[in-house]
Amino acid sequence: MSDDLQALLPTGRVLTDPGLLGPYLHDEAEWAPAGTPVAVARPRSTAEVQQVVRWCIERQVPIVPRGAGTGLSGGANPIDGCVLLSLAAMAEVLEVNAAESLAVVQPGVVNDDLRAAVAQHGLWYPPDPASAPWSTIGGNVATNAGGLCCVKYGVTGDYVLALEVVTGTGEVVRVGRRTRKGVAGYDLRGLIVGSEGTLGIVTEVTVRLRPGRAPERTVAGYFDSVVDAGRAVAAVVGSGVIPSALELVDRHCLEAVDAWKHMDLAVDADVVLLGRTDTPGAAGEAEAAEMTRCFEEAGATFAAYSTDQDEADALFAARRLAYPALERLGPVLTEDVCVPTQLVPEMLTRIQSAGARHDVHIANIAHAGDGNLHPLIITQPGDDAATARAQAAFEEIIADAIALGGTVTGEHGVGLLKRPGLAREQAPEVIAMEHAVKNALDPHGILNPGKAIPVLLT
Amino acid sequence: MSDDLQALLPTGRVLTDPGLLGPYLHDEAEWAPAGTPVAVARPRSTAEVQQVVRWCIERQVPIVPRGAGTGLSGGANPIDGCVLLSLAAMAEVLEVNAAESLAVVQPGVVNDDLRAAVAQHGLWYPPDPASAPWSTIGGNVATNAGGLCCVKYGVTGDYVLALEVVTGTGEVVRVGRRTRKGVAGYDLRGLIVGSEGTLGIVTEVTVRLRPGRAPERTVAGYFDSVVDAGRAVAAVVGSGVIPSALELVDRHCLEAVDAWKHMDLAVDADVVLLGRTDTPGAAGEAEAAEMTRCFEEAGATFAAYSTDQDEADALFAARRLAYPALERLGPVLTEDVCVPTQLVPEMLTRIQSAGARHDVHIANIAHAGDGNLHPLIITQPGDDAATARAQAAFEEIIADAIALGGTVTGEHGVGLLKRPGLAREQAPEVIAMEHAVKNALDPHGILNPGKAIPVLLT
Repeated sequence: MSDDLQALLPTGRVLTDPGLLGPYLHDEAEWAPAGTPVAVARPRSTAEVQQVVRWCIERQVPIVPRGAGTGLSGGANPIDGCVLLSLAAMAEVLEVNAAESLAVVQPGVVNDDLRAAVAQHGLWYPPDPASAPWSTIGGNVATNAGGLCCVKYGVTGDYVLALEVVTGTGEVVRVGRRTRKGVAGYDLRGLIVGSEGTLGIVTEVTVRLRPGRAPERTVAGYFDSVVDAGRAVAAVVGSGVIPSALELVDRHCLEAVDAWKHMDLAVDADVVLLGRTDTPGAAGEAEAAEMTRCFEEAGATFAAYSTDQDEADALFAARRLAYPALERLGPVLTEDVCVPTQLVPEMLTRIQSAGARHDVHIANIAHAGDGNLHPLIITQPGDDAATARAQAAFEEIIADAIALGGTVTGEHGVGLLKRPGLAREQAPEVIAMEHAVKNALDPHGILNPGKAIPVLLT
Repeated sequence: MSDDLQALLPTGRVLTDPGLLGPYLHDEAEWAPAGTPVAVARPRSTAEVQQVVRWCIERQVPIVPRGAGTGLSGGANPIDGCVLLSLAAMAEVLEVNAAESLAVVQPGVVNDDLRAAVAQHGLWYPPDPASAPWSTIGGNVATNAGGLCCVKYGVTGDYVLALEVVTGTGEVVRVGRRTRKGVAGYDLRGLIVGSEGTLGIVTEVTVRLRPGRAPERTVAGYFDSVVDAGRAVAAVVGSGVIPSALELVDRHCLEAVDAWKHMDLAVDADVVLLGRTDTPGAAGEAEAAEMTRCFEEAGATFAAYSTDQDEADALFAARRLAYPALERLGPVLTEDVCVPTQLVPEMLTRIQSAGARHDVHIANIAHAGDGNLHPLIITQPGDDAATARAQAAFEEIIADAIALGGTVTGEHGVGLLKRPGLAREQAPEVIAMEHAVKNALDPHGILNPGKAIPVLLT
């Protein structure tokens, strides 16, 4: 069957040899199940994507899109018998329009590459997931990825103006606009952002840009307890300061990064909070001072507005490397809960007690200013009892987040890992609406089925 | 038939006496057609809304929701035989949560009343349509309303965290979240924002707030030609300054306001540009100076950073009053086109030539910094020939906006007036997707049918 798919696209675009499929069999969510595709298609144009989609429609073959495979929920994991559609080779920046502050890119463009391309024009693309050096804009759009600066500047979807999409009926459409404002018809653009390829395959993205910004000031705070740090976060958010980043990293993460990269992160603290402000001038000074005050009043053992940019950059680099550094230690079960910011201390307490109760090692990184916590449960390969305990802790943390009025996924997406949790978070009537929308836009049921939304209970 | 609807709700909630229906028969789009409802329901609770929706489902009666009736596209105009559902009496601010920077309101809360309520807590609700003293949050959500400050702070949808909705199947659901971030399932919240009551009836809105901001500085520029003013707008946008407002008002509007309110707007110019910045300190001074420079280089006859706050406030008040002031002169046919900002001068030129070619009087107000222009075509009541010429000019302006890569509606919504234009703007495949979504979420076809999206061509 895959032979005629191979014939459909130019030579080399379709892989079927099992020996070559390895890199496409899994995203970064080590705990999520993955099936085996019949083929991996690597199109280079929208027309080629359309051909693959039409081929899949005709044969009722599921199609699973994939960017760089850095997802943390299993959203890009193949389904048995699917065509895995890698968009990584569609990686051109098609336009940077400084006068209109927008860029048009193919989905395979890496996030940091887009940022570098627009910086040459004095512009800035804000959304900055920790995976920015590797993840693609298409993947960022599919998951509506967040990042460090979204506490001030919003998430991927806030920067998506328009999309070119191959639909579930095999048509190529454009949704959204190039203008700054527009309310023409339903917001299909916003509906497709974050839908993990289940409502259409994104083949081109028009993003809004901002002017380049002033250099950031960094405030670092060291804490003896994760809960004190949580109180500092709640204080900053309540102070009226909108930091350009407010990140939490615990000792486990810093040690793992240091062991890997030898960055001399000689931090004598259990938890580090990193606050940033990019407000220029005296107002920015005042914000940095206010953050420092919040850190100190919450019980920081050390808090300072860092004048050493290298040290600040090293701490932020460590923050970004925390996930891959921990992965080196064993399979990581990643949470992505988000709670009201005032409940960050309470949620951190519950995470600690879940770790203690189930005797599992939990490291914490967090976009703390958004209330978006990433407890990372680390196990040893092959330890089945520990695996079971980790899963129990994972479920308990999800239940706690929901109980605190939070959500099971702040920015990673639902994929496969968060589907059971989402079924607890959402009412059956909402799940039914999601399925109605899914059926409306994917009438053949081929677009990444079984991802992003919970099972429909009938 | 309406008798049992009357029995369904407490006494006085349902009006059927034709003598009482007058205030509900039309929104502010004087040119849009309107039918006659069988009844006007004025519920006071979500449960009452649900009862009305279920009643309508059982009898296949269309339901048209309405806030304050300040819409400019006919979206709230009754359909023959419908139940007109006025949400104006559901007007409570249910919660202002300063720690989480959010508020929860009923849909009938007036925009300015919400702003005042949260200001008491040191917070700010940015979206500020010119109708803010009268329009409701529910109506703002239904149209995804913009306003003056969205050039810097975004539109209504950017501030909607969650919605309570009575669905097309008569269920009460909550979509969205209370947390700062969240990607749990499809963005039904964003889909319903701007859908003009065609996908659900919004009964409660959770909005995100910002900290109160610094006082604004105002830069005024006077121009002898609308096109010079357009070039000034393009220059400001290209300069990297993000103004907190950048409004254009022409002489016709200022004169109409002055004739009505006697505000002594002794402005000796054809067009006034009003730029604002709320960036604090020296950085804000620099932005005001840069805007002044842009105005001067584009040919302003006068441009100054106003130190007279009263004068600046008067000009902004005049901007907000322009629409009702012009309505006093005769029926106003309102455009809401939005084009790329660099094409604002070109679009203004085309508007002028459409006015000249069709011999109609066109006044201009614009959220110029967004490229969102409101040419207002004014006719004399009873002059049929002028009416026909006005409609021809209206159609031509819409065609020009589309030709320049723009949209037929930047912020007013599609309603009835912009449906034909939208059918030209959107591809048939996109319109088909919109109808698929509509049918999925409104399977009985009762929710404000015939609004918001173009006719489906089969």
